[in-house]
Amino acid sequence: MKFNFHVPVAVRFGKGVANEIGSVVKPYGSKALIVYGGSSIKRNGVYDTVTASLREAGVEWLELPGVEPNPKVTSVDKGAAICKENGVELVIAAGGGSCVDCAKAICAAAFYDGPAWDLVENRSLVKKALPLFVVLTLAATGSEMDSGGIITNPETKVKSGVGSPLLMPKVSFLDPTYTFTVPARQTAAGTADIFAHTIENYFDSATDTYFVDGVAESILRTCVKYGPIAIREPENEEARANLMWASPWAINGLISCGRNEGWTLHGLQHPIGGWYDITHGEGLAILTPHWFRKILSEKTVGKFVSYGVNVFGIDPSLDPFEIANKAIEATEDFFFNQMKIPRTLSEIGVDDKHFEEMAQAAAPGMARAYVPLSKEEIIELYRAAL
Amino acid sequence: MKFNFHVPVAVRFGKGVANEIGSVVKPYGSKALIVYGGSSIKRNGVYDTVTASLREAGVEWLELPGVEPNPKVTSVDKGAAICKENGVELVIAAGGGSCVDCAKAICAAAFYDGPAWDLVENRSLVKKALPLFVVLTLAATGSEMDSGGIITNPETKVKSGVGSPLLMPKVSFLDPTYTFTVPARQTAAGTADIFAHTIENYFDSATDTYFVDGVAESILRTCVKYGPIAIREPENEEARANLMWASPWAINGLISCGRNEGWTLHGLQHPIGGWYDITHGEGLAILTPHWFRKILSEKTVGKFVSYGVNVFGIDPSLDPFEIANKAIEATEDFFFNQMKIPRTLSEIGVDDKHFEEMAQAAAPGMARAYVPLSKEEIIELYRAAL
Repeated sequence: MKFNFHVPVAVRFGKGVANEIGSVVKPYGSKALIVYGGSSIKRNGVYDTVTASLREAGVEWLELPGVEPNPKVTSVDKGAAICKENGVELVIAAGGGSCVDCAKAICAAAFYDGPAWDLVENRSLVKKALPLFVVLTLAATGSEMDSGGIITNPETKVKSGVGSPLLMPKVSFLDPTYTFTVPARQTAAGTADIFAHTIENYFDSATDTYFVDGVAESILRTCVKYGPIAIREPENEEARANLMWASPWAINGLISCGRNEGWTLHGLQHPIGGWYDITHGEGLAILTPHWFRKILSEKTVGKFVSYGVNVFGIDPSLDPFEIANKAIEATEDFFFNQMKIPRTLSEIGVDDKHFEEMAQAAAPGMARAYVPLSKEEIIELYRAAL
Repeated sequence: MKFNFHVPVAVRFGKGVANEIGSVVKPYGSKALIVYGGSSIKRNGVYDTVTASLREAGVEWLELPGVEPNPKVTSVDKGAAICKENGVELVIAAGGGSCVDCAKAICAAAFYDGPAWDLVENRSLVKKALPLFVVLTLAATGSEMDSGGIITNPETKVKSGVGSPLLMPKVSFLDPTYTFTVPARQTAAGTADIFAHTIENYFDSATDTYFVDGVAESILRTCVKYGPIAIREPENEEARANLMWASPWAINGLISCGRNEGWTLHGLQHPIGGWYDITHGEGLAILTPHWFRKILSEKTVGKFVSYGVNVFGIDPSLDPFEIANKAIEATEDFFFNQMKIPRTLSEIGVDDKHFEEMAQAAAPGMARAYVPLSKEEIIELYRAAL
């Protein structure tokens, strides 16, 4: 077991914490760029809270609205240009993971002379970055407490990431009441994203990770318990708070300590996201049971047993393969019945026209996978999920 | 649920990581103070590794050996004087939690004109601190990843703490193979310390902490699974690594997020430690079952059920009080049979002469306790543990 762990992000968690943002950012500068998506932050009070706090602290701001759910590199270039032209000293992402990811890339691109996509293709070009602050409105990507961001290149259909310790947010403001207005479909997709990050880590060939396996199981149980409650009762603060606090721990490095980090599901999903503008968490949920069925074997069944017993409470005295199959069915029930996530790729507008190119793009990422899949197996998997 | 979480400590974990210390500390200065306890770091190679790495990086060092298992404020004053007289720029703690705690207080006292005990009595006096680096040799206190340190005043018998975000280690080097030579008794006491930190958080009146409850349960299961293995097979790397990585998470703030943080057991144990030079973890283990029996009631039984079922695998279909009592017995079996920790205060040299003063010292800390205890109840509890 060998790893580094370093997550210097300061988290302020709870109702009303975003009121503090002005005084928190002020030591970093007096000119901010607020990065956000649609109009939801204007409806739910986030925009008013943040701007009132900045005004009170004497921090000016510019705005980059309209960041896409799968943020495009064109938005990054636009944001970086605003920073360069106006001497922006810090960036505030107000929204979900897409805004945070886009804002991270802007923080780096603000100090780079050239197209932002270069920073995705060559992470070592990130030498300096503006300080980033996050006001989160959706529990999903965990970007509020890590160093990476996923960006899409609409020309090449490539979905890939920026990443550097310099891109860790300085302070993330997590107010679970800001997620009360997240619609059911986005709540479900966000929860599926948290769940998927966790199983990417959990289904791993390392066998000596008992402590962090238990942390991963707690994140999974949190999704299973509170995801459906958050959908039924959108203003249930206990549910929203537990999902919001579990989310970053699925991806900030703790549960990956000592692992090989194959991340197969994301490797399979990102090419789909490059070709089709789908919701990331839905794509992951749809692929998960098909991936599970493909990798279940004598070699992996023990991991499925732990998963079934410790996450879904399946009777440990049953036959291991029976437990494994029940665990896969329980996963499907959770995603598709309780959370009402679409069950097939067709339902979210994906057809089979680009399976060949998508599998071609996914195949090289399988080198470190828990169970490596060939290009043909990936196409089979996509087809099964259609 | 409202909290701040900020643990900027960089952890380097795994066999051989301490070889990197010279190049890691060099940017912080060229003159170090190494703080350590007895001769064990000279026998197990830690001293040679650290000093060779410093030498290679061109970092000079001074030494403060002989730090006590319950570090005394006199050691802190001595270390601070060395720093002031020699222009020390950084401090390296090489040892267990006592060394780290003492080193933290030295880091603060190096910038304070006056006796170090002032900084314990008034934490706001800590305005500046030398940067601290840790090479850990014992999984126990979690001091390698938090901001506090426990110091004893031998004159007044008071055991209390320094604490400031400035005292967080910059980098902690955690090499589980350095714990291979920890004797069985210290391994048991260290594991009991991790366990106690966790139950202090777990037995709390907050009811909406499901996610972090699960993390706490994983730490407890890690102690129960690997503590006895580490005692039987001191060089079992999987056991040592899981204990070493679980340990800081018992106390770095994650599992206390959203709680009231009563910390009764430590409140009961510290006065004992002030009067008698006992091993902290042994004192905690001895008190735990007596505390459990004292607080078990209709109101608390649900927590004991979660504890029994999720940590010890007790059948959840039993009567709640039966589960609770079985859980307390399982705790005793773990501490006193499997880990061979002394079962009574008498066995570790504590008599009943100062119960009155000790209870007097402990009583004020009960204000925020999970179940507040009166001075009389505390004396009863001490007497039961005798």
